[in-house]
Amino acid sequence: MFKKILYPTDFSDVAKKAFESIKALRSSGVREVVILHVIDSRFFEAVSWHPTKDFAQMEREIIEEISGEVESMRKELEDLGIKVKVRIETGIPFLKILNVEEEEKISAIVIGSHGVSNIEEMLMGSVSEKVIRKAKKPVLVVKR
Amino acid sequence: MFKKILYPTDFSDVAKKAFESIKALRSSGVREVVILHVIDSRFFEAVSWHPTKDFAQMEREIIEEISGEVESMRKELEDLGIKVKVRIETGIPFLKILNVEEEEKISAIVIGSHGVSNIEEMLMGSVSEKVIRKAKKPVLVVKR
Repeated sequence: MFKKILYPTDFSDVAKKAFESIKALRSSGVREVVILHVIDSRFFEAVSWHPTKDFAQMEREIIEEISGEVESMRKELEDLGIKVKVRIETGIPFLKILNVEEEEKISAIVIGSHGVSNIEEMLMGSVSEKVIRKAKKPVLVVKR
Repeated sequence: MFKKILYPTDFSDVAKKAFESIKALRSSGVREVVILHVIDSRFFEAVSWHPTKDFAQMEREIIEEISGEVESMRKELEDLGIKVKVRIETGIPFLKILNVEEEEKISAIVIGSHGVSNIEEMLMGSVSEKVIRKAKKPVLVVKR
């Protein structure tokens, strides 16, 4: 039931707390973790007026910025004997998370209850709420 | 992190699936499970016109009806070496669940994503959605 975990992260504090709970789950049969970060494509749309940057360049900058943190998570899990796959995607976060759940044949999702707070989440519900509603597999929601 | 599990159940199919996941979590340190069934007090209000029944009598009838199922869950967990406490409460389900989370010093909640389907859940969101939003501790949401 917890063999292959999908761990979507926006690197917020609660996402980091969720990461700790993956380690707590380890003895329940966790074999592999897919660490997923979704770069919100709407962010690109919001800054598309910017004259000196193109999407590909911004994407590269973001990936560079987060790679240190991602690699330290990878190492921590691998040291526990857990296989790790990292996916950095661009899109609408909750939709990408649900896509990856299908594609990777995930057994359970571990997610923070709220991401980096923003107005949209307050109005429309959090990414995790949408994921919980639409996911096929069990979702462990870790609270702030 | 999974030491003392709160398992709210309305005996729906998805609640039974959630029960299976408690067993899957066992090796992650589950020591005790609180099995909680909340008799929805609004149900009593809805039938309060009934001339021949009083609340206490109806409550007794419901408790009798569910006791077989509760006792077989208790036995199954105790056979795995897990301590079990059963609580049957009357009230608004999501509020009672949150009360019991506090009172029992729960470490995590395991719940089905949707209960016995009803119009109110469709309009107002499910009990589990409200629990996820307000719970202090991690919530494992098991899907239909």
